[in-house]
Amino acid sequence: MKLFDGGRAPNPRRVRVFLAEKGIEVPLVPVDMGALGHKSDEVARRNPLQRLPVLELDDGTVLSESVAICRYFEELQPEPPLMGVGAVGKATVEMWQRRMELNLLMVVAQAFRHIHPAMKEWEIPQIPEWGEANKPKAAEFLALLDRELATREFVAGDAYSIADITGMIAIDFMKPARISVGEDLSNVQRWYAAVSARPSAKA
Amino acid sequence: MKLFDGGRAPNPRRVRVFLAEKGIEVPLVPVDMGALGHKSDEVARRNPLQRLPVLELDDGTVLSESVAICRYFEELQPEPPLMGVGAVGKATVEMWQRRMELNLLMVVAQAFRHIHPAMKEWEIPQIPEWGEANKPKAAEFLALLDRELATREFVAGDAYSIADITGMIAIDFMKPARISVGEDLSNVQRWYAAVSARPSAKA
Repeated sequence: MKLFDGGRAPNPRRVRVFLAEKGIEVPLVPVDMGALGHKSDEVARRNPLQRLPVLELDDGTVLSESVAICRYFEELQPEPPLMGVGAVGKATVEMWQRRMELNLLMVVAQAFRHIHPAMKEWEIPQIPEWGEANKPKAAEFLALLDRELATREFVAGDAYSIADITGMIAIDFMKPARISVGEDLSNVQRWYAAVSARPSAKA
Repeated sequence: MKLFDGGRAPNPRRVRVFLAEKGIEVPLVPVDMGALGHKSDEVARRNPLQRLPVLELDDGTVLSESVAICRYFEELQPEPPLMGVGAVGKATVEMWQRRMELNLLMVVAQAFRHIHPAMKEWEIPQIPEWGEANKPKAAEFLALLDRELATREFVAGDAYSIADITGMIAIDFMKPARISVGEDLSNVQRWYAAVSARPSAKA
């Protein structure tokens, strides 16, 4: 088994943090995304979408999409559970994972890709007006998240889950996207400090 | 249990088709999205994101996000499996569900919301340039999908799955978004005709 990894980019890190929380070690194949290594033949013949991470199993089966790779490891080694337990628990974690991804991580990514000068060759056409339109969406969702986190320790309930991983990485991604977390959002600040202090956050 | 439903909108229909394939009947509470019923107090107090569908269980637990609602029913009643079997099977279906959603359904939705005059009050600001930029993304993904469907019957393998539901609904959504499936994409055309002919497609 080997994991084609993309360094500091958000999606490869989601899988590395997940694996660190599980205590699973997978041999990494580093790919230099700055040099467009994700568009190389090595990656493209495994993932036609030319994105990372990509997991290759020993029998040649290839899995891409961060959350799908996490699902594979969750099924293989359920403990500690990071995708919920039981029908309601699994659905609740999936709901919050999706909310964090679709309403925060992807929104921040749109702001970054459509505004940052370094993304000019990556996002064609770059539309700064669309990038800017995403900033208030991120702020609005963070305010909603702050109200939710007033009632519980982690994003999807009392246990740490993949929803926390997606959320932490989305907030880290806000820095290069030049969006800040309001200082008044004390529940988000408390939660972000806690999840960032876990050893897995260094992965 | 009751499902707050949103009629012809793509996401509510994803859950209805899924339930039809499972043979599960859930009482529906119709919500008129044309009259902005999804922003009503009835919906907003259950889903702060003010989106449909929303599932409420008998104990008051609320689940939103179409795929999370589907996950709940998959766990409750695994047969027939629509989200894969075994670790590799589940991860493969999730990979393809995400690919169909992120690279087709959401891309088509962006084109629709940022170009269609009826969406002016829904998508603020409406940025036609961004809507147009999504049309070639949809075409590019459909070409990739056509190559994949040359090798197998359904999107994620030899069995019908939630990835087919998301894909069928994305293609139906291309009509109001005014994007057409190339006539040369014979594998996509064959697959789309087959999944659309299933009784569940009427749900």
